[in-house]
Amino acid sequence: MIDRLAIIGVGLIGASLALALKKSAAVGHVVGCGRHPENLQKGIELGVIDSYTTSIAEAAKGADIVVIATPLGAMKMVFEQVSDVISDCTIVTDAGSAKGSVIDTAKAALGDRIAQFVPGHPIAGAEKSGVEAGLANLYENRRVILTPTNSTDPNAVKVIQQMWLQCGASVEFLEVEHHDKVLAATSHLPHMLAYSLVNYLSNLNDHDEIFKYAAGGFRDFTRIASSDPVMWRDVCISNGDALEKFIEGYKQELDEVSSAIRNRDSERLLELFSTAKSERDILIGNC
Amino acid sequence: MIDRLAIIGVGLIGASLALALKKSAAVGHVVGCGRHPENLQKGIELGVIDSYTTSIAEAAKGADIVVIATPLGAMKMVFEQVSDVISDCTIVTDAGSAKGSVIDTAKAALGDRIAQFVPGHPIAGAEKSGVEAGLANLYENRRVILTPTNSTDPNAVKVIQQMWLQCGASVEFLEVEHHDKVLAATSHLPHMLAYSLVNYLSNLNDHDEIFKYAAGGFRDFTRIASSDPVMWRDVCISNGDALEKFIEGYKQELDEVSSAIRNRDSERLLELFSTAKSERDILIGNC
Repeated sequence: MIDRLAIIGVGLIGASLALALKKSAAVGHVVGCGRHPENLQKGIELGVIDSYTTSIAEAAKGADIVVIATPLGAMKMVFEQVSDVISDCTIVTDAGSAKGSVIDTAKAALGDRIAQFVPGHPIAGAEKSGVEAGLANLYENRRVILTPTNSTDPNAVKVIQQMWLQCGASVEFLEVEHHDKVLAATSHLPHMLAYSLVNYLSNLNDHDEIFKYAAGGFRDFTRIASSDPVMWRDVCISNGDALEKFIEGYKQELDEVSSAIRNRDSERLLELFSTAKSERDILIGNC
Repeated sequence: MIDRLAIIGVGLIGASLALALKKSAAVGHVVGCGRHPENLQKGIELGVIDSYTTSIAEAAKGADIVVIATPLGAMKMVFEQVSDVISDCTIVTDAGSAKGSVIDTAKAALGDRIAQFVPGHPIAGAEKSGVEAGLANLYENRRVILTPTNSTDPNAVKVIQQMWLQCGASVEFLEVEHHDKVLAATSHLPHMLAYSLVNYLSNLNDHDEIFKYAAGGFRDFTRIASSDPVMWRDVCISNGDALEKFIEGYKQELDEVSSAIRNRDSERLLELFSTAKSERDILIGNC
């Protein structure tokens, strides 16, 4: 049982965590913190949080666990303010989708208190944002990755692991660099591809007509291009090196198909598409 | 009322057309034609077709309308066999997702009978294939594009337009080249991007682990990579020039985001993602 939980950033991720913990009676009081009182007020009305403040220090003070669920770009400021007020018993965790940069930021801000910080990342999300997007079952049967370092207190890790288990998630551990590489490939890269496709087609002369004939495939393919732009700007800044490498590698893969098309190489095209289909069918389990 | 309808290629597209026409009592007898008797037999059991043959000539003979719903690569052979047996009253149409190449093929095979051919393309589909994937409502509220040329008999166009209207679709007319360009952008390009993403990630050393952490975004994004490889090979061969141009243009769009990431250009990244999000939200109507 978490007596007092502070959620800094009450959006889709933070609100869903609060709702899931409340559903399984794993939390006492949830204090929400954000920049917009109207969003926090809505959080109270929806039963997501029990109280709110726009002061990070006030929210973190006396909390057993502080969850930072802001975009990555806001974390430096949050860690600095949290650092000033937490006790030896407080555990701090986050939900950022890049971990290397968060750990660097946390180290600089928390100093000796870095043992109390457990870097985390729930592999769940949606293209909706804000407190009203919160879902009590968002983490059910989803993976949460924790990336503790040598400096992290193993007992703190256990507490955060338990918190996510109570949300119905499974918890796994990855090395920081490995996490950032895997996520760049499976999440950050596809977002860049979707945003770029929408922008590319928008910039064509007859884009109104082009979008008019877009079918279901296009709709699904670009769903993630409706994701929060600030969050994704921050991901690009935080995990830029890994991401840039994957974009370049992907362009080479596009050259493969482009050259097969140019040469009207039927055999190669069939091979490329058959391999992709069978890999994807195995992955999704509908083979 | 269509007395006798021949469907050459009883897969998702052909089966759905038959089911839709039967549902609105707009067809008498449907004869299915394909290479695999077991698939056709299943079509009878499912009530999709009323009889079948593996002979294209036999299916087309005496039909009021012949619908060619095979992959593009099989159409030359189909047109040649259809040409030998149809009467002056038979109307031939197709459902190919590239139109320029089909019209060239039809002209060569049908000769003077080219007036009887109405090039068509229903903008609907799914990643499933085969007769059991057929859905009576697949075309409801979907667009069907017809691309008649100067040689096409306007009365034949009216008959095919009516056929699709009875399936619940809306029918629109585009110039052949314009159709092929628009579809290259909104359908063919996204399929290439999805196939390439799956292949790219599959070829990475630690692909098992990478796929393990793939989330919902990746799943939706790559859904179309489970589409029929033969169909998409044929699209690439048939509409290669337009498609190759779009792949190259898209790579330049990727360079935009790649360079903004390299330069950690926050402002530009936010601009790129915000523009894409607002365009996509308008497009999908969830703004």
